[in-house]
Amino acid sequence: MFTMGIDIGSTSSKAVILEDGTRVAARKVIEAGIGSEGPDRVFADALSEAGITHEEITRVMATGYGRMTFHGADDQASELSCHGKGIHYLIPEARVVIDIGGQDAKVMQINERGTLLNFVMNDKCAAGTGRFLDVMAGILSVQTSELAELAAKAEEPLSISSVCTVFAESEVISHLAAGATRSDVAAGIHQSVAKRVAGLGNRIGFRGPIAMSGGVALNAGVVRALEHELGRQIVTHPDAQLAGAYGAAILAFEKETM
Amino acid sequence: MFTMGIDIGSTSSKAVILEDGTRVAARKVIEAGIGSEGPDRVFADALSEAGITHEEITRVMATGYGRMTFHGADDQASELSCHGKGIHYLIPEARVVIDIGGQDAKVMQINERGTLLNFVMNDKCAAGTGRFLDVMAGILSVQTSELAELAAKAEEPLSISSVCTVFAESEVISHLAAGATRSDVAAGIHQSVAKRVAGLGNRIGFRGPIAMSGGVALNAGVVRALEHELGRQIVTHPDAQLAGAYGAAILAFEKETM
Ligand code: SF4
Repeated sequence: MFTMGIDIGSTSSKAVILEDGTRVAARKVIEAGIGSEGPDRVFADALSEAGITHEEITRVMATGYGRMTFHGADDQASELSCHGKGIHYLIPEARVVIDIGGQDAKVMQINERGTLLNFVMNDKCAAGTGRFLDVMAGILSVQTSELAELAAKAEEPLSISSVCTVFAESEVISHLAAGATRSDVAAGIHQSVAKRVAGLGNRIGFRGPIAMSGGVALNAGVVRALEHELGRQIVTHPDAQLAGAYGAAILAFEKETM
Repeated sequence: MFTMGIDIGSTSSKAVILEDGTRVAARKVIEAGIGSEGPDRVFADALSEAGITHEEITRVMATGYGRMTFHGADDQASELSCHGKGIHYLIPEARVVIDIGGQDAKVMQINERGTLLNFVMNDKCAAGTGRFLDVMAGILSVQTSELAELAAKAEEPLSISSVCTVFAESEVISHLAAGATRSDVAAGIHQSVAKRVAGLGNRIGFRGPIAMSGGVALNAGVVRALEHELGRQIVTHPDAQLAGAYGAAILAFEKETM
């Protein structure tokens, strides 16, 4: 039995097709999210990667910010439950999931079956989210994906005292004008995100092995800064960005079989 | 006896010279603050406007963000006490002072002598401060001082759902792309600041007549939006931006005579 999970975010669309809730038949990411052709394209691409037709999919489960507006799904599930299930599939030992998205940040506590126990979220303030990284990358005239490479050459991370993205922006501009290196600034940017996300997670505590999901998990600079800030190791997975789609495909399978 | 109050902010420097703590001998604003020649220039300009020399000033009291780095002062006083005293001088009936600065916002409760009783402040988040207005004016390609004129022509203020300056920026950009008028956007910007500042002040309550000080008090759009939000009249004064400097000059006089 094939099930599909489709995760429609603000800036990207992800789809995963599983056979019998375990074997990966397709996994696709398109960097275009809600309001674009991204969802339809990722849906079609996943089918063609799996070499099957829409009719062969027993259930399509949508999740993410844009799940309500996607008409190709049979069902919807909350982002948080999908993330928990998906991370559990990719990183079975994980009990804490840090998910830094393009416009929000969440820290979730999950159990040994990937079920969500508790969570804390920031979706009101750009500080500590992917948006902070985008704004800061803009000041350094690099792509957000290039920040980690820059930060790797840092000698001493610049300490950014303002939490606020807007005030931090001015702070960074004056540090650069005063001669700070772009690498030290990039490292300081990662540190700022790490401090903010650690503060968020401390509200529920970091109990058990920590995993990271979401697009920002691909940014090694943020992962290292978080490890440093928490004094703990963080496990990532190359498919971390697809965790929500994995989880949705698993929930679709569970719904058919349980 | 002459006393001078000098208020050194992040973006402007203000000086007031009083004779016997009451008669205004000079009042000056220079749009250049800490780290510039602004403080020295406003000091010299005030002396020349009053037609007196530095030696004739019995006491110079500095206040504001840059008060510690200015060497021409005999003494320093906190911004909050100076604001309270200054507003009391300009608007004697005021018991609540709303001060929206370039990078912060405060709501103060004062008594019938202008003494500070209680206050609440936001200097961590750009939302609800002059900085929010600057960022938004940038999107509309106008000067911050031109926002009120634009907003006056609004037909229906755009409701901005994000509190965060960064997220509000994207929201406004998409509303403009979708055809919102710049006037409605400008009015929505003022409403956003008003809501945020009202929320701040509600923590201590708005008891008694309300006055507005700080540079943003000159923005009629913000004042009107605040009146609408609070359902109360707000008193302003053309010298509201100099309230801190007035208060510092009064405190200097009190220190010499009491
Ligand atoms: S602190 Fe800055 S980034 Fe956070 S909500 Fe306020 S304006 Fe936005």
